[in-house]
Amino acid sequence: MVDLELIKQISQSSPTKIILLVMDGLGGLPHPATGKTELETASTPNLDKLAGEGVCGLSDPVGAGITPGSGPGHLALFGYDPVNFSIGRGVFETIGIDFDLQPGDVAARGNFSTMDKAGLITDRRAGRISTEKNTELCRLLDGMTIEGVSVFVRPVKEHRFITVFRGDGLAADVTDSDPEQSGVSPKTIAALKPEAVKMADIANRFVARAKTILAGRVPANMVIMRGFSKRPHLPGMNEIYKLKPAAIADYPMYRGLARLVGMQILETGATIKDEFKTLTRNYNDFDFFFLHVKETDAAGEDGDFDRKVKIIEEVDKALPELTARHPDVIVVTGDHSTPALLKGHSWHPVPLLLNSRWCRPDRVTKFSESACITGGLGRFPATQIMPLAMANALKLAKFGA
Amino acid sequence: MVDLELIKQISQSSPTKIILLVMDGLGGLPHPATGKTELETASTPNLDKLAGEGVCGLSDPVGAGITPGSGPGHLALFGYDPVNFSIGRGVFETIGIDFDLQPGDVAARGNFSTMDKAGLITDRRAGRISTEKNTELCRLLDGMTIEGVSVFVRPVKEHRFITVFRGDGLAADVTDSDPEQSGVSPKTIAALKPEAVKMADIANRFVARAKTILAGRVPANMVIMRGFSKRPHLPGMNEIYKLKPAAIADYPMYRGLARLVGMQILETGATIKDEFKTLTRNYNDFDFFFLHVKETDAAGEDGDFDRKVKIIEEVDKALPELTARHPDVIVVTGDHSTPALLKGHSWHPVPLLLNSRWCRPDRVTKFSESACITGGLGRFPATQIMPLAMANALKLAKFGA
Repeated sequence: MVDLELIKQISQSSPTKIILLVMDGLGGLPHPATGKTELETASTPNLDKLAGEGVCGLSDPVGAGITPGSGPGHLALFGYDPVNFSIGRGVFETIGIDFDLQPGDVAARGNFSTMDKAGLITDRRAGRISTEKNTELCRLLDGMTIEGVSVFVRPVKEHRFITVFRGDGLAADVTDSDPEQSGVSPKTIAALKPEAVKMADIANRFVARAKTILAGRVPANMVIMRGFSKRPHLPGMNEIYKLKPAAIADYPMYRGLARLVGMQILETGATIKDEFKTLTRNYNDFDFFFLHVKETDAAGEDGDFDRKVKIIEEVDKALPELTARHPDVIVVTGDHSTPALLKGHSWHPVPLLLNSRWCRPDRVTKFSESACITGGLGRFPATQIMPLAMANALKLAKFGA
Repeated sequence: MVDLELIKQISQSSPTKIILLVMDGLGGLPHPATGKTELETASTPNLDKLAGEGVCGLSDPVGAGITPGSGPGHLALFGYDPVNFSIGRGVFETIGIDFDLQPGDVAARGNFSTMDKAGLITDRRAGRISTEKNTELCRLLDGMTIEGVSVFVRPVKEHRFITVFRGDGLAADVTDSDPEQSGVSPKTIAALKPEAVKMADIANRFVARAKTILAGRVPANMVIMRGFSKRPHLPGMNEIYKLKPAAIADYPMYRGLARLVGMQILETGATIKDEFKTLTRNYNDFDFFFLHVKETDAAGEDGDFDRKVKIIEEVDKALPELTARHPDVIVVTGDHSTPALLKGHSWHPVPLLLNSRWCRPDRVTKFSESACITGGLGRFPATQIMPLAMANALKLAKFGA
């Protein structure tokens, strides 16, 4: 089976350039009134031209029937098997706020919650306090040192925050304190392995101190913790692919995911136009660009079919900025489907186009889900996208004699 | 997952016959002037008829984006995962000259090279001496016995030769003496594992003796060695498939690969017509035939689009000789793509047709890359070809009750 080790053996550096344009949650479902998906409804002359000259297909981010989160979806796009390389909940939330997690750090997700006088949790979400209130409370908890371990506490949104423990000899194999129900006490955090005893002890002390500090601050008079995890060891894209990769993404989560695989994060403005201009500005300095458009997914999650259509059209209008650079390989796809009709991520395979001088064109002339079914790439796992892009950029040597 | 062990459990001998016709490097890329590949340009009424009555698809020899060498490409066709079963460089060169490598033999590739008085390599290829000169020098080195180990030395081409060490207790885990650059001394061959100490010692003695024998024979006054390897342990096709398999191939490399998996090698004339006649002559004695046509690949490697078209047409014309035998299953495919435009092997999936009484025909009526995209077999790994052929020959029993 082809794996990262094999790719690493045959990858070779070259001056050719690859662009991976990801419209988050690109795949959709047909509107009942028209029978057309968001992508099929959008007017996309530039994408259609790329598809016509290129080769298309449908990819499964994790596997048939599996609805991926953003983490697995992107890991697959970058060529990492998302089942082998899982990202813990604590780490995921932490990179999602652009916190620069170091190897060795243990991250956990926390909830501000409400506890009654008997010590039972009455509301796991503290009445969904405002993000402002959350920020204020995090400031009270941030900056402790417990037995030489530094504790960082940062707000995420509403009642959610993250805690990062930084110090020597911390293992993440500990249980949650979050009981996942109300009417019971928070659980004591316990080590699942002998080497995690220190982490469990420090986490319990943190919770105890937080309880003291928050006393009387109803509804947020307690914290519950879960998803203790460490940064997964992901071999860098420079190591595997011998690329110099850069990421252009407005949302911190995607910058964080890109950082995990060793991409350089480029400063960028927030609009789609801004992001494409960032590409142009940095074009000479890298040989791989991950360009992430978030709004397609956000519109899908909101169930806003028309807005998703408009954002796809906006990306299409911005495309000439990219094609004018004549990159050797352009891949356009999504990290998963987010059909407006489902108002959330889904398991449906994701349309993909690959355009390069060396691809074998198929008969697809429109970039759409239904056209991609008949594409030359067929239906394939998303982890194959990077090897395909690398091959078309002539960056993979022959395997075996 | 289906693997060779499972196939071995359910395979059963039967009188039905399977023909695997391999046009080496069959897959192509469209000619810029016509938009048609070599196969699409060729007039192939007989192949089209087989495709029309059969089922088609596109196969990946190793994996998406991976450009296979001839070794991996053929192992996959014979059903062996080419990443699990790799063939070392020395073995590959050795079977390429029809040398009958035995289990236990260690083979290495050698270069005649030029060394200056200080002992530094000045030309790793000895000015690319002629094959005649090479043959003469090999005769000087051939036939040594070093501590009971017999040493065979045979010319390959120009400055390249092979050495086979035959004796007890030889392990191939040793380093190269080839420094892979000039201006430095050849390296001492070192054992990578304790059990390879004997091999390293004998190889170093061989190099020392060769140096003495070649002294003064500038430009070929030294040898450098690399790719020490043993015949991989491949379970035979008779064992896995319970077949009696035969190979018809003009090029020694492909006879060697077929021998590795236990095929009987049939004497054959060199032309395509000859090869098909060899099939007819031996038709009653075997139940599986691997018929290899090399020239498609050679034309592709030369960048000769028109010649590749002509060779495909020549194969098509020879086909009635084969179909007149009414074999139960005919598979026509390549071991990889060799587009004339790329002048070399490539990663593009390979068109395949399978014709049998029991296949479920699709709507493909022409054997071509673009038609195979819509074939009933879809896009699939080449290791599935043998199970499919076996099933269509009714040689695989039901799996499970």
